Parts: sequence; C-alpha cells; structure tokens
Amino acid sequence: MGFFITFEGIEGCGKSTQVRLVAERLSRAGHGVVVTREPGGCPIADAIRAILLDARNSAMVPMAELLLYAAARAQHVAEVIEPALAAGKIVLCDRFTDSTMAYQGFGRKLDRELIAQLNSLAAGSIRPDLTLLLDCSVETGLARAMARINTSSAAREERFEQESILFHERIRDGFLSLAAAEPGRFVVLDGSGGIEETEALVTEAILARLPASPARR
Amino acid sequence: MGFFITFEGIEGCGKSTQVRLVAERLSRAGHGVVVTREPGGCPIADAIRAILLDARNSAMVPMAELLLYAAARAQHVAEVIEPALAAGKIVLCDRFTDSTMAYQGFGRKLDRELIAQLNSLAAGSIRPDLTLLLDCSVETGLARAMARINTSSAAREERFEQESILFHERIRDGFLSLAAAEPGRFVVLDGSGGIEETEALVTEAILARLPASPARR
Repeated sequence: MGFFITFEGIEGCGKSTQVRLVAERLSRAGHGVVVTREPGGCPIADAIRAILLDARNSAMVPMAELLLYAAARAQHVAEVIEPALAAGKIVLCDRFTDSTMAYQGFGRKLDRELIAQLNSLAAGSIRPDLTLLLDCSVETGLARAMARINTSSAAREERFEQESILFHERIRDGFLSLAAAEPGRFVVLDGSGGIEETEALVTEAILARLPASPARR
Repeated sequence: MGFFITFEGIEGCGKSTQVRLVAERLSRAGHGVVVTREPGGCPIADAIRAILLDARNSAMVPMAELLLYAAARAQHVAEVIEPALAAGKIVLCDRFTDSTMAYQGFGRKLDRELIAQLNSLAAGSIRPDLTLLLDCSVETGLARAMARINTSSAAREERFEQESILFHERIRDGFLSLAAAEPGRFVVLDGSGGIEETEALVTEAILARLPASPARR
C-alpha cells in the first residue's frame, strides 16, 4: 500500500503551492507520486466542483452543498485515490474530509455527526496516513487569496472567497480542533512564513513520517 | 398548504406525458399548479442532472450517483417544492424519493436504510400527499422509451436507457413493494394502455384525493 498525505487549511494558507513543491521533491527522490485535489480530481468530480464553485450558484442550500462534496469525494476516492494507494504511490491531496468538517461543520454549522457519516460513506476505508495543517491567521490567508484573485481570470468562479471573516475564523478554529483531536494523524505547521520557509517545515514533517521503502516506489 | 403529487414508475410508463396533461386539466379548472421533475427542477439541480445523465460519465460509482440525487433533491425541495406548497399550489413532480429507493435501492442494491436516511435529509419535512405509480411491464416501458430515443436528438445523454432488462424488472418490483408498504399514499394505476385511457385513471385518482378548496387555488 502507498502513503496518503492530505494538506488542509484556510484560504491562502499556501497548501496548493506546497503540494506542488513537495510533489516535485518526492518525484526527484524517485517516489511514485500522485497529486490531486478536492473537490475534483477526476472528470465527474471536476464537474461537481464546477457547480460548487460557480458564483452564479449563490442560491445553493447548505445541505445540497454538503451532499455535493460527498458525491465528488466518493467518485474521487474510488477512481483516483484508492487505485493509486493500491499501486503503492504516495498520494498528495489538496483538501480532503477535514475541509468538509471545517467548512460545513464549523463554518456553516451543519450537524457534525452527519458530516462524519457522509465523510465515511464517501471515503470508505481510505483515511489519510498524515494530514498537514498549514495554519495562518485569517488576515494573512485572505490577503494572499485576494492577491491571487486580482491576478486571476477565474476570479468570478471563486464563490468561497466572498465569505465573511468570521466564517473563516470559525473554519481556522475548526481545523485546529480537528488537529488537537487526532494528534497522531495531524501535524500543524506555521503557514504564515515565506514559501521556502514553509517548504522546509513540510518536507521535514513528511520525511519524518514516510515509511522507509525497501525499493524506490 | 398546497398539495404535493408525485408520479413514479419505470422508463416509458407514461409519467411525463400524464404530468403535462394533468397540469393542463388542473390549470383549466382554476388551480394554481407547479410542474417540476427530478432530478432537476431548478438551475443547480439541473446542472447535477446533466452530470447524472451524461453518457460519458459511465465510470460513476453507485455511491456518488446516490449522493448526487440527494444533493439535487435538497436544492429542489428548498428552492421550488417547499415554497410552492407554502403558497398553496398543487405541485406535480415527475419522480421523487421513491425513484431513488426503486433505482438505487432495488435496482443497484445499495443499502435501503441509507437511502431512506438520505431521502429524509434531502426532502426535510416534505412528503408527497399522493403518489401515482404508473405500472406497466418492462417490455412495454422500454419499447416506448426506445421509440422516444430513436426520434430524439438528446438520445446520447440518456445513460439510463442502456441498463439491462433485469435491472428494470428489479425497479418495477421495487416500486410495487413501496406502494404495497404505503397504501395510504400510493395509488397504483395501469400504465399499459393508451394516453387517454391512462389520463382518465390519473384524473380520477387525483380528483378523489384532492382536498376541496374553499376558493380556487
């Protein structure tokens, strides 16, 4: 079996950049690496992602949103993550079940037991071996996200960036609670520094936990 | 509160035609009528419908499919059905929760308790006041559906018509079981006859159960 690493955190915490950098580093070291993200990661889940992120869908009710995330995850796990792990790959996933708990549970205050149940339904027996929570203040994260929006042609598709500061504070607190509840799976890293600084922390955390492989993966 | 009527049955049972005819008849009689369908019925649910019916999505796993139906229903109920009933309308819906139980539960053999739970999550407190099951043999239904496909440019989008005869037999049996379990809500009608013949049965069933309204709706 492979090794499943998820990257979590609020908007602008630097996850996506770090996933890319770590993937390059692990590939150079000879590991078989699969990089993916949620929502999305395969054509059906990408189509669901498009509905979730479409700014015109502001009428979406929280229950529909939660069920769409679960649907996208069920497909993504079955089609991408599970086969990659079965093939012995290191899977790096930008957001996974913890984002649903943080955003829909802590952020939108939907029933957390229900979310846990839907997460299990969608992920089946697949659980992250390691979850890196890149933590930074909401101000830092949103400032980075705003800078990205202003230079991005896809800005109008990003429905989530429009949410309030308080909403993002609840999400950050939610991620920290989840990490505190599962210290064996989570590593909380300071995501407020520069890209190279954070990359050093991320690499150290992964190398400390990656099982020694008998041969190159 | 209004009156919520759902139309159920296998492919080609004549539901959609009857929904249209009944809507015309009730409107002519002065009732406020809202006609809708599942999956779909509002822009977000229609976008989900497009994913569900897209023939290119043959890799869709059953759990993702089930969760997509639930997501579409949650949005449709909140955005269309609930407000229409609150406004005193008669809502005619082409497929609803029973289709999910028949197709995903009896047809695809997913866990029926889970389906019942997702149906409740999506529909909230909304339940049909009357469900008309148009019953016909699988041979009759599929022959009609095939004739429709052959004259329709949207044929390639109809992923479900490709399913096996046995699958449709399980679905028909499932609908009949659901009707037997809730005789107060269901009326089973013979859908094997001609359009006008069936229309007479449908109209009679509805007029027998529609509450007398103090004024025209």
